[in-house]
Amino acid sequence: MTADGPIAILAGSGRLPIQLVKHLERTGQDYRVLAIRGFAAPELRRQAHATVDLLDLKTIMSVLDGWRPCAVSLVGAVRRPGFGALLGAYSLLRNMQEVKEVVARGDDQVLRGAVKLLEERGHRVVGAHELAPGLVAPASLQGRFAPQEDDRRAIVVGLDLLGALSAFDIGQAAIVAREHVLAVEGPEGTDGMLRRVRRLRQSWLGLRRRKEGGVLIKAAKRGQDLRVDMPTIGPKTVREAAQAGLAGIAVGAGSTLVLDQDETLAIADRLGVFVVAVDLPWIGPPNG
Amino acid sequence: MTADGPIAILAGSGRLPIQLVKHLERTGQDYRVLAIRGFAAPELRRQAHATVDLLDLKTIMSVLDGWRPCAVSLVGAVRRPGFGALLGAYSLLRNMQEVKEVVARGDDQVLRGAVKLLEERGHRVVGAHELAPGLVAPASLQGRFAPQEDDRRAIVVGLDLLGALSAFDIGQAAIVAREHVLAVEGPEGTDGMLRRVRRLRQSWLGLRRRKEGGVLIKAAKRGQDLRVDMPTIGPKTVREAAQAGLAGIAVGAGSTLVLDQDETLAIADRLGVFVVAVDLPWIGPPNG
Repeated sequence: MTADGPIAILAGSGRLPIQLVKHLERTGQDYRVLAIRGFAAPELRRQAHATVDLLDLKTIMSVLDGWRPCAVSLVGAVRRPGFGALLGAYSLLRNMQEVKEVVARGDDQVLRGAVKLLEERGHRVVGAHELAPGLVAPASLQGRFAPQEDDRRAIVVGLDLLGALSAFDIGQAAIVAREHVLAVEGPEGTDGMLRRVRRLRQSWLGLRRRKEGGVLIKAAKRGQDLRVDMPTIGPKTVREAAQAGLAGIAVGAGSTLVLDQDETLAIADRLGVFVVAVDLPWIGPPNG
Repeated sequence: MTADGPIAILAGSGRLPIQLVKHLERTGQDYRVLAIRGFAAPELRRQAHATVDLLDLKTIMSVLDGWRPCAVSLVGAVRRPGFGALLGAYSLLRNMQEVKEVVARGDDQVLRGAVKLLEERGHRVVGAHELAPGLVAPASLQGRFAPQEDDRRAIVVGLDLLGALSAFDIGQAAIVAREHVLAVEGPEGTDGMLRRVRRLRQSWLGLRRRKEGGVLIKAAKRGQDLRVDMPTIGPKTVREAAQAGLAGIAVGAGSTLVLDQDETLAIADRLGVFVVAVDLPWIGPPNG
């Protein structure tokens, strides 16, 4: 790490790496993109300074060492490789028992393992929210629609549930209608979970399509390292939520990223879906 | 309720009502089947003494009143109707505020509402496990295969998770690989959740198909009324678990029903899947 080196972006899939790069461009910061093969969006891969395999930690480390970055940020999604593949990748660098402990557990632990590896090599790891605070959901986030009484009950139940699940390192999201939990997010991700609820409701309702209500609650886990896998929503989340018949979306204030914030709220307004930020009891209100 | 009346079986879908009726036949007990339209299996509907709509509580009550049963058992699955439909059905009989509280919540609460209604009419509600104890998973349940170290860790994590989720009245099951939670059951049911994990793994592994391990843990919730919606597995569960690449299935001893127990274990042996019963910390070991 050198104080005047570039910011290194290790880029997975989705729009977050693209928006982060745009922000760094706009603010005139020096950066380099290390695109993860098979994950980074084509749009970003053209800008990438290097491309690597997710599990080729040796090359990732040597590229980063060469760049001497002032900070490294892991952004965008990757699909969790199988246990054996993870074991192989991490075993290059660490004590085998420790590797097994890490990769046997949830995604958080695997990502923490990656952060620890980077830090051991002397890199400073930062979150997208530190590089581009404008992407973070402010406490004041709110479109044209607001949660109604039923939705507020659903949000309370959802936060309780996610709090109780924090210890298990699973999903960052749940869908609740009134006090009825419709889904808990697993490795299928938020969009996958929203499509599940949409299918459930279609089969319940036959051909009738109507707004059944319910809220997507998405929040960082208790004790989650916000530098990696920070909860994120965007225009796609709003569209999927509307198609699942939900009334709205509630995210943790100050601890969730909202991609294309203006567009996200505009789509929510158009589709009649609310988007709000709520304080997470286990994180507290955001500063400022 | 009359001590010498028949046993009334209010029958939803699946094989449980069929097996319960077979058991009552075999043991020479007097019974009557009230089949729920659209849910009870065709095989059972032919034996039904009457057929009713799930939400037509008025008719259900008047048929039962006419039969003067010594006990009523609600067996087999039904799909939870929409909020509005449930509200309408229950409102025939109860205080509106109370109805709203019940139907806003999870399936357990809705089923408890149904049990309460029956009990208020003077019926004795019993569980399938009380009528046919032979269907219950004994502590000794075990096929040819046994859980390995990884699986035992998964079972511990799964039981912890289901214990923590008990307060939320959601799924009775989860899938865990080592300490990594792959899915929490929602209203899609156990088979739906198993298919989800199968799809997840297919997309992870591409065309390669191999046994990835993991355990389906299925257990009654803390404080669950075992007379309704008792966790159930059977041959189909074992087949779906094998197709999802799981190593095995663990169920709560004494508080889970195993349909076709011999066939279930034979299929598990053939497919290389273990099936075991474990004590639930919140229920304790079964008697006897």
